Amino acid sequence: MRKRQGILIISDGLGDRPIKVLNGMTPLEYAYTPNLDCLAREGSTGNVYPIAPGIPVGTDVGHMEIFGCDSDKYYPGRGPLEALSAGIEMKEGDVAFRGNFGTVDEENIVIDRRAGRIKDGTAELAKALSGMCLEDGTLVLVKELTEHRVAVVLRGKGLSAAIVPTDVGTANEGVRLVVPHPENPQCEEALKTAENLWEFTKKASDILKDHPVNQERIRNGLLPANVILTRGPGQLSAIPSTAKKTGIRALCIAGDITVGGIAGLVGFDYYVQDSFTGGFTTDYMGKAQKAVEAIGEGYDWVVIHVKGTDLAGHDNQPLEKVRIIEEIDGMMGYIMNHIEKDRCYIAFTADHSTPCEAKDHTGDGVPTIIWGPDVRRDKVEMAGEAYFMEGALQNLKARDIFALQMDLMGFSKKRGA
Amino acid sequence: MRKRQGILIISDGLGDRPIKVLNGMTPLEYAYTPNLDCLAREGSTGNVYPIAPGIPVGTDVGHMEIFGCDSDKYYPGRGPLEALSAGIEMKEGDVAFRGNFGTVDEENIVIDRRAGRIKDGTAELAKALSGMCLEDGTLVLVKELTEHRVAVVLRGKGLSAAIVPTDVGTANEGVRLVVPHPENPQCEEALKTAENLWEFTKKASDILKDHPVNQERIRNGLLPANVILTRGPGQLSAIPSTAKKTGIRALCIAGDITVGGIAGLVGFDYYVQDSFTGGFTTDYMGKAQKAVEAIGEGYDWVVIHVKGTDLAGHDNQPLEKVRIIEEIDGMMGYIMNHIEKDRCYIAFTADHSTPCEAKDHTGDGVPTIIWGPDVRRDKVEMAGEAYFMEGALQNLKARDIFALQMDLMGFSKKRGA
Repeated sequence: MRKRQGILIISDGLGDRPIKVLNGMTPLEYAYTPNLDCLAREGSTGNVYPIAPGIPVGTDVGHMEIFGCDSDKYYPGRGPLEALSAGIEMKEGDVAFRGNFGTVDEENIVIDRRAGRIKDGTAELAKALSGMCLEDGTLVLVKELTEHRVAVVLRGKGLSAAIVPTDVGTANEGVRLVVPHPENPQCEEALKTAENLWEFTKKASDILKDHPVNQERIRNGLLPANVILTRGPGQLSAIPSTAKKTGIRALCIAGDITVGGIAGLVGFDYYVQDSFTGGFTTDYMGKAQKAVEAIGEGYDWVVIHVKGTDLAGHDNQPLEKVRIIEEIDGMMGYIMNHIEKDRCYIAFTADHSTPCEAKDHTGDGVPTIIWGPDVRRDKVEMAGEAYFMEGALQNLKARDIFALQMDLMGFSKKRGA
Repeated sequence: MRKRQGILIISDGLGDRPIKVLNGMTPLEYAYTPNLDCLAREGSTGNVYPIAPGIPVGTDVGHMEIFGCDSDKYYPGRGPLEALSAGIEMKEGDVAFRGNFGTVDEENIVIDRRAGRIKDGTAELAKALSGMCLEDGTLVLVKELTEHRVAVVLRGKGLSAAIVPTDVGTANEGVRLVVPHPENPQCEEALKTAENLWEFTKKASDILKDHPVNQERIRNGLLPANVILTRGPGQLSAIPSTAKKTGIRALCIAGDITVGGIAGLVGFDYYVQDSFTGGFTTDYMGKAQKAVEAIGEGYDWVVIHVKGTDLAGHDNQPLEKVRIIEEIDGMMGYIMNHIEKDRCYIAFTADHSTPCEAKDHTGDGVPTIIWGPDVRRDKVEMAGEAYFMEGALQNLKARDIFALQMDLMGFSKKRGA
């Protein structure tokens, strides 16, 4: 089959519901999006479920599915994904956690789960802890992530991820650090892992509290990062490489390193530069230019991820979400003007919905477009959840969209003969 | 996530096909339904399959799916469901049957499968049989259900539900009672169970024929209930509680005790009063009032079931079906006027289609609406199968609708992070 190229733009948490301040429209319906409207008019559209109707997903699961991977079978938990994002090379048997630098008082009461939203100095703090050897010989690897976040990996014999780690959970500040314990008290591997995690947590606090970064913070009236709170334990199972399975060479462009980590997990290259923030403001045009460049270099599939729409949803900022969608539309315009339209398929989707009013991920379908030289056109004329309900892709799933774009690009595999 | 409440109205067997005497419309399209039209206009709609396209289901399977339970994995057969409805506490290993009081002649030829549609005296008849001990020590429990119906449970060691029981089947009057036998002659447990059932059937007939209730019936020229016909054998497996799984406190309001039994099975409370008949006429407003009351009391989810539409379908009475749909619409109006609209999601669906002309359950999709403060609106303006084909929920499944309503109410669980 002839091979063609494709670009996919993922607007994180894009899906929304009718919002009063937007005259009963969603942010996508309300935004001025001439380029997305054009793609919608000339392509196939629909609201697509990340996994199934009414099932909310996290960014990690959402992206696994968008990348053609069955999360139900292969989702390893958030810990391993974060560790990979951080650049730690996971080995079989490792137990990984995602975590925060936090602040505790002398009685281990959690004062702030994010150590005053610490940003600077976390690399030094992580370095001071990483490589710690525990009493039974277990090795601990620690690597900073964005802002207050950190990845922790226990590497040793006979460990298990079936434990309750130390983090007290959102909105639970003012309570004491959880003493890690096995989910099932009978499980010796989990018991050992919990003891290891506790030993690490105490030793880490001893090192952190006297660290120059924290002494400096205290002098400046800032909360010290004197504890590591861990959650999301998991072990990595063998995840099938989407790149190998389909034969595509793919590049993921994202400021959010979780997304980059997942891309790596399924065999894609990952590109980030400082101006790609994973925040409210990012270098939209830089991402678009990089994508066009990568297509020029011969990548089969280039994925661009934009995080801002999700953040605006979590913060219930509909107008900010509108603004970011309009930035994405501009990015689309650049891409459309710089690709060979007769040999490139463009898709646009989201990993999940984060409706402003709900301030959290929901199980609503996400607005999706597939566009290209010979894509079937449905009757939809405008970009928006309400319009897409009449589209050809309505009620499909994220993995269907992946399969459809791969098939258009000539990377699907025939069953039978 | 913020929690909200929900109400679901189930119109049993509602789905239909174009009918000539209704000018080629379905009963729902033909009926005057200003309230359902309003919900359709302001919400999402579609024709939804109970399990899959073209697969007809029974009321029991249909309701399991509507209640978020995978019937393919957990359906125990009708017998156990009826036994539970009747209030028999099932134990592991029990084999339960649904049955009828019927009339046989001296040669066990079935004269009437419903003993002249007996209504009075079945409680006494069941009591006279219940507690019977068979030769091998197996205990038999018998409990009357509505009208001529009855539940029978065999409780003993080494029983199996893989048998062909005694009932001759619909439209098979005039033939001899089936002598129960195992589906697989090699299966000793099934052989033993079949023998037990036959022993019970013969002893029951001996007791029934001389029972005062039957002597009285014969004196009044009515057919005696001198046999118990059994069908639908099954054993109860552990069914996951939907209430526990989701964390909702739910109430089911229904005159039909099968529906109530299924509600109990998945962990819902069940409410019935004498005016809720499960028949052609029921206390529509009483049900609506009770639902509003239950929402006021803090139930998360309240389900109202109306049986009449199914009965009208079975009897090929399109105009009667129209009348019942209009009653349901009035019920809807009452509910809409008595809830807090900004914190309650209303859904409307059916367990299956019972098209009048087919006079039986079919595998057509069932008209469905989801409505609420921030539900996405599709373009559908009227309630009816034909209109809903263009709706956003078209071709989803019953369990999707459950998941979507739970997600809107804030009772879904995120996968991943």
